[in-house]
Amino acid sequence: MTAYDDSNIFAKMIRGEIPAIKVHEDADTMVIMDIMPETKGHCLIIPKAPSRNLLDASDEALAKTIPVVAKIARAARKAFDADGIQIIQFNEEAAGQTVFHLHFHVIPSYEGVARKKHAMGEVDQDTLKAHAEAIRSAL
Amino acid sequence: MTAYDDSNIFAKMIRGEIPAIKVHEDADTMVIMDIMPETKGHCLIIPKAPSRNLLDASDEALAKTIPVVAKIARAARKAFDADGIQIIQFNEEAAGQTVFHLHFHVIPSYEGVARKKHAMGEVDQDTLKAHAEAIRSAL
Repeated sequence: MTAYDDSNIFAKMIRGEIPAIKVHEDADTMVIMDIMPETKGHCLIIPKAPSRNLLDASDEALAKTIPVVAKIARAARKAFDADGIQIIQFNEEAAGQTVFHLHFHVIPSYEGVARKKHAMGEVDQDTLKAHAEAIRSAL
Repeated sequence: MTAYDDSNIFAKMIRGEIPAIKVHEDADTMVIMDIMPETKGHCLIIPKAPSRNLLDASDEALAKTIPVVAKIARAARKAFDADGIQIIQFNEEAAGQTVFHLHFHVIPSYEGVARKKHAMGEVDQDTLKAHAEAIRSAL
C-alpha cells in the first residue's frame, strides 16, 4: 500500500492550514460537513492520527474514533429527524476513496430519498454551517 | 428506536441455533460470509453484544469490534488480491438494514467491477466455505 502523505486536504484542515466547516473537534478527532453531501447532514469523522485509511490505521486510533462516529450518527439522526443512517468508509481508489487520510462518512437516510454520489451538488457554506450547528446542538 | 429483539438470524447464529459460514470467532465477535455477496469475499463482522445497530451500541462493544473489522479487511484484501475495501454499516430500514443486530460489511473492491446489491446472487456453500478459508489463512 502507498505510504501516508500528509499533504492531503484533511491533514491540512487538521493543521488549520485550510478552513473546514467543523461540527466537533477533540484531541483525537475532527468532524466536518462534507461539502458535496449525498444527503442533508452528510458529515465526515476524521481521526487526527495519520493513516491513509482503515488498512494502515492503528487499533488504538480506530477504537477512539468509532464511538465518535456513533455519537455523530445519533446527533445527525436527531437533528434532521432522519429515518436511518449509513456509515461508509472507503479504502483505496478502487473502493471510492478520494482523500487519502482515514475518514468515516455519516450519511443520514430519508424515506423515499435515494443516496447518490454528490446528489446535492456543492452546497453553499451558510447552509452547511447551519447543518453543522444543528448536529452540534443535538450532541 | 425499536428495542433489540434477539430472534434475529445473527443472534441465532451466535447462539449456534442456525448454521453460519464462519471466518473467525472470538469472545466478542463472530465473522461470517455474507450468503448474498456483493463481490467476492464479502463478509460480515458481528459483535456478540446485543444491539440493534450502531445507534444503540455501547462504546465498549464498538471499540472491541472495529479492530476486528480492520483485521478482516486486511485479510480479505490479501486473500483475494482486492484493489480496495469498502466498509458499510446500515442503521434502520430506511438506510438499508435488513437484519436488526449490529453488523459491519467488509466488501472487497476490484478494478472495473461495480458493487451492486446482491450482485453475485446466492453463492453455493462450498464456494463460500472456500472464501472463508482464504480469508482465515490471510489473518
